Amino acid sequence: MYLASDNTSGVPEQVLAALTAANDGFALGYGADALMDRVRDKIRALFEAPEAAVYLVATGTAANSLAIASYIQPWQTVYCHRHAHIEEDECCAPEFYAGGAKLTLLDGPDAKIDADQLEQGLASAPGGVHHVQKGLLSLTNITERGARYSVAEVTRLCAIAKAHGLPVHLDGARFSNAIVAEGCSPAEMTWKAGVDVVSFGGTKNGLMGVEAVVFFDPAKAWEFELRRKRGGHLFSKHRYLSAQMDAYLTDDLWRDLAITANARAAALEAGLREAGARLVHPRGGNILFAEFPLKAHEALRKAGAVYYDWPAPPPEGAGPDHPHQCRLVASWSTTEAHVADFVEILKGAL
Amino acid sequence: MYLASDNTSGVPEQVLAALTAANDGFALGYGADALMDRVRDKIRALFEAPEAAVYLVATGTAANSLAIASYIQPWQTVYCHRHAHIEEDECCAPEFYAGGAKLTLLDGPDAKIDADQLEQGLASAPGGVHHVQKGLLSLTNITERGARYSVAEVTRLCAIAKAHGLPVHLDGARFSNAIVAEGCSPAEMTWKAGVDVVSFGGTKNGLMGVEAVVFFDPAKAWEFELRRKRGGHLFSKHRYLSAQMDAYLTDDLWRDLAITANARAAALEAGLREAGARLVHPRGGNILFAEFPLKAHEALRKAGAVYYDWPAPPPEGAGPDHPHQCRLVASWSTTEAHVADFVEILKGAL
Amino acid sequence: MYLASDNTSGVPEQVLAALTAANDGFALGYGADALMDRVRDKIRALFEAPEAAVYLVATGTAANSLAIASYIQPWQTVYCHRHAHIEEDECCAPEFYAGGAKLTLLDGPDAKIDADQLEQGLASAPGGVHHVQKGLLSLTNITERGARYSVAEVTRLCAIAKAHGLPVHLDGARFSNAIVAEGCSPAEMTWKAGVDVVSFGGTKNGLMGVEAVVFFDPAKAWEFELRRKRGGHLFSKHRYLSAQMDAYLTDDLWRDLAITANARAAALEAGLREAGARLVHPRGGNILFAEFPLKAHEALRKAGAVYYDWPAPPPEGAGPDHPHQCRLVASWSTTEAHVADFVEILKGAL
Amino acid sequence: MYLASDNTSGVPEQVLAALTAANDGFALGYGADALMDRVRDKIRALFEAPEAAVYLVATGTAANSLAIASYIQPWQTVYCHRHAHIEEDECCAPEFYAGGAKLTLLDGPDAKIDADQLEQGLASAPGGVHHVQKGLLSLTNITERGARYSVAEVTRLCAIAKAHGLPVHLDGARFSNAIVAEGCSPAEMTWKAGVDVVSFGGTKNGLMGVEAVVFFDPAKAWEFELRRKRGGHLFSKHRYLSAQMDAYLTDDLWRDLAITANARAAALEAGLREAGARLVHPRGGNILFAEFPLKAHEALRKAGAVYYDWPAPPPEGAGPDHPHQCRLVASWSTTEAHVADFVEILKGAL
Repeated sequence: MYLASDNTSGVPEQVLAALTAANDGFALGYGADALMDRVRDKIRALFEAPEAAVYLVATGTAANSLAIASYIQPWQTVYCHRHAHIEEDECCAPEFYAGGAKLTLLDGPDAKIDADQLEQGLASAPGGVHHVQKGLLSLTNITERGARYSVAEVTRLCAIAKAHGLPVHLDGARFSNAIVAEGCSPAEMTWKAGVDVVSFGGTKNGLMGVEAVVFFDPAKAWEFELRRKRGGHLFSKHRYLSAQMDAYLTDDLWRDLAITANARAAALEAGLREAGARLVHPRGGNILFAEFPLKAHEALRKAGAVYYDWPAPPPEGAGPDHPHQCRLVASWSTTEAHVADFVEILKGAL
Repeated sequence: MYLASDNTSGVPEQVLAALTAANDGFALGYGADALMDRVRDKIRALFEAPEAAVYLVATGTAANSLAIASYIQPWQTVYCHRHAHIEEDECCAPEFYAGGAKLTLLDGPDAKIDADQLEQGLASAPGGVHHVQKGLLSLTNITERGARYSVAEVTRLCAIAKAHGLPVHLDGARFSNAIVAEGCSPAEMTWKAGVDVVSFGGTKNGLMGVEAVVFFDPAKAWEFELRRKRGGHLFSKHRYLSAQMDAYLTDDLWRDLAITANARAAALEAGLREAGARLVHPRGGNILFAEFPLKAHEALRKAGAVYYDWPAPPPEGAGPDHPHQCRLVASWSTTEAHVADFVEILKGAL
Repeated sequence: MYLASDNTSGVPEQVLAALTAANDGFALGYGADALMDRVRDKIRALFEAPEAAVYLVATGTAANSLAIASYIQPWQTVYCHRHAHIEEDECCAPEFYAGGAKLTLLDGPDAKIDADQLEQGLASAPGGVHHVQKGLLSLTNITERGARYSVAEVTRLCAIAKAHGLPVHLDGARFSNAIVAEGCSPAEMTWKAGVDVVSFGGTKNGLMGVEAVVFFDPAKAWEFELRRKRGGHLFSKHRYLSAQMDAYLTDDLWRDLAITANARAAALEAGLREAGARLVHPRGGNILFAEFPLKAHEALRKAGAVYYDWPAPPPEGAGPDHPHQCRLVASWSTTEAHVADFVEILKGAL
Repeated sequence: MYLASDNTSGVPEQVLAALTAANDGFALGYGADALMDRVRDKIRALFEAPEAAVYLVATGTAANSLAIASYIQPWQTVYCHRHAHIEEDECCAPEFYAGGAKLTLLDGPDAKIDADQLEQGLASAPGGVHHVQKGLLSLTNITERGARYSVAEVTRLCAIAKAHGLPVHLDGARFSNAIVAEGCSPAEMTWKAGVDVVSFGGTKNGLMGVEAVVFFDPAKAWEFELRRKRGGHLFSKHRYLSAQMDAYLTDDLWRDLAITANARAAALEAGLREAGARLVHPRGGNILFAEFPLKAHEALRKAGAVYYDWPAPPPEGAGPDHPHQCRLVASWSTTEAHVADFVEILKGAL
């Protein structure tokens, strides 16, 4: 019952097999491997974007920071949600890569940016030389609170940004989970909606550590390559990134993995509801935030369940009936049995 | 006959096996995996440094830049060789990570820093507020021209740096090759000689992309952790880095791989000499720089040999007898047959 | 009736006389002028801080950014008010000087930080490697909304910061106005209250462009000197900064100028109240925010009054009775006649 | 006999008078003062560049760093002389402002860049992603060793840079001295020769601290304004910078001051030669580097002469006949008597 994070899971056998296959013989380094050509083609096809510039990096923080820095100047600001990963969980990496830029924090339920607040913020931002300049809009889908922007919502937010001349970045660490839940195509969620650059996440959905950064306008390609190198994120033995991403894109593996993760989360949600737990945020994909009495948490932990208290541990001296919140993340490797066991223990404790 | 770079080779089966083994079940992320505890212990034992702070990153540029930045201020300078990797091949990554610091370039044959020039440079560096301040000495062993510092040479250079209050960084992308060629212990080449932080390279010697950064004084540990995260170099699924490094450290795999690479280079060197080629730099480990007539290059390339012209392609219109230089790098996966074939073709062409 | 800003005023004759006197002969540059020795002594005496490190720069943004950067790391955050000058009016200068650090914005009426929110923010800030680290508390007195922290309030905020190990910076662009209004000594408002570094502003209170940065603990002195030089803020002909500050400190000129500015603002406040205008924020020194009907603004502007609409111009089509807000700043050179004229026109229009 | 630096001199009475005149009444801040409009017009006329973007800053380091940063990316390098001010005397300010860029050092006698070395350096610079990218050429005229580039030399260096797509920056801290010595127009030495941005120095030639940055192509104007603000170099009471520069431009004051400084240096040079001293570098304007016996230095210092040993103090135990080098800088305020006294003492000692 390991529900701490989707990045605590392993990788499916196809990924291991791909690494083994890629290991044969010699290969040119630094992205000049033949596998990368195949990956590039597949991603362009998947996103229906034949001109897209496609790059691989190994971490989500690198993907976000490098993509954002490619679009903004150091005296500009990134509009993002107060609970965006780039604000809360990257230790100033975006500011570092963008040379000292700022993040302007927006509100909205479930870590989804309130469109009116964005509109108002952009409209009222002073333009003069004393003030930070408007730079870019950054969205996250699935959000950090597990919710999902619909295609229509992404489209609306992009339209607001575009009306003010801002490019749009999409943090897609859980892009696959969003796509399969929304039932749309990658193109519909990205460039057709107005997104300029997306990180197509692999790490949280079954790879060891690979994220694709996809620029729909290749104008930023060379700058990104220099930024990636300068950040130490260009792999000499690049084939091992390519191989993982190639496996991910073969026979829609990415999709199958996300479908499984979402299905496990859905089953868990149903069980939580049956047990009387409160769902704190609407489920957009594979993440749940739930509240139930402390005694049930204790029973679950005792039985080996691993997950995070969220946003904080229970207060000192809280009694067994204290309603306590947690985060539960399903992954491609969460089994039906994991979910069933969890729900059974939960029900038993309540 | 793939001699372009040691990073065009694959990984030995032990590394693949370790990844497969590590893939089982769930694991805490971000370096909290149990495998990392084992790696830390092994590296501390290998370096006879029970207090050392040990971290893994995925690229040599990250290892160098993060280690250097942890020791210098943005108004300080790194003393390094004119042909150091940090100067020539990292696209300003050290300057980026160190917030705008400078590199002061030193000369010396075979990319080894001339100790007298270092001494003179440090002694004459003005200290006032107008000038960049002395920051750190960075060495590379094996050097970028394939030569090797002896333990005595490292010791002397460190002593000069220390006399001026400077810490010392050792870029050990090919540290294993240096150690086995020198016949010394890792401790003798590092902290016993005066080195403060070393990158113990794995990527060029048989791993997919793992370098250990070892601080002999753990005082910089927390700062390094923050810098690593902020640089996007902290892996969520860290176990896959740990597993590779663990395999590398098991049964002295790192040593065996380096011994093989060096032996292949030695055989190649012997063959080159027999064929009448000129060795441009003394061989310190697994890299050779050789000069022989263009016609032999053509024969080799025609037969499928892959390696770099160095430092530049032949001039336009150069005739078949034009003496032309190249770089030849052996790796753990270079076979005796590769070397024999290469030498045979070379001899045949001359 | 020039009430746009205290930086639209000129300088008193003593400052011009000091420049003329300082112009005689040759003088060592870069802060080694004899006048600077005098200035240092006077500031140490004024602040009752014989060990303080004292430096001059020419702009408030330089003073703030350099002082803050001397205390924080690039992965740390500055706690400040949402309406602090460093957040709203410095175009990311603090982020630039601090190498990509963050500003964490706090609320509170009248641009004064709410102590409970600070306490809560510091107590709940996660400490782990993924998150920006707590860095420094920055206060502004007089605040950007014209209010004033009492000595007790500064003391309480500093105590909260100190309890979490944070140093405290005080943006004193209008420090003189605060001191004379509060009736306390410079020491009481700074180091005795817990402030570590203050910018003692001259520019807004009668100098051409000089701010003193005062570190009560001289440990940061050398770092500041290097940061100042690297920022291009070390003046070669430093004597002209010294001369201005020396005049400012002679016979308590700084105090007299601030007393005058505050008195003019007080008179203006009285007139505004008599005229029925609403004061938007309590007056702490020489700045007022007032609301009165648009027709009165029109009459004032027609009569030559210069001041800023605040926070925004009147909405399109607003009628003559629309209550509209503005900012009014008195300076040392605002005359009683200016105030009387302003009030008379205002009353006449209402 | 104060020959330490031109920045140890004061300012002529016209500058003081201009400050006094500018002090009258209120003025809009931040460069919106009416005087700045006049300055802009005058500089455009002086440089025959009606479209030029013109800005004032207070220090040479700010002028250089902001101008350079406006033209390069953080992964690019500035080609400059090994003894350029930006390399030797700005404590990494260019690297700081340019976000971690590099300086590539070139040689050449008298701190003048060797054109062939520049050509070769640019032609052989590798372009790939691993390497720092070519960014900009920075010249200094008068050079840091007192020599002067002719218009033809500047033209040739610019042509080489342009052939490789590089913009050209001219550090004109002593631009006036160069212009009057060369007998050319400001346009001939700058945009007609291929220079893109020049700092037109005032501080070393009679102002308190003002440098004009002139972009011949205004495309960089807005970026420069944001960089200036973000660097803390935008003055609120900007009129005091404008007033100084306005006086400088009135009745060719800048020219008269430079003519005087150069004439004094010429007289000093003649005296040095008569006395048998060796001139280390050819004199290009107002700076001399001379070598003569230590006993003469001692006599001069005893008589009150102030100047720098250059490049270093005499070695320990050097005898009275030891030939020792120094730097001698004349300024607008150096008198004929200063020079005559200096020469007389020198001759008397030899």
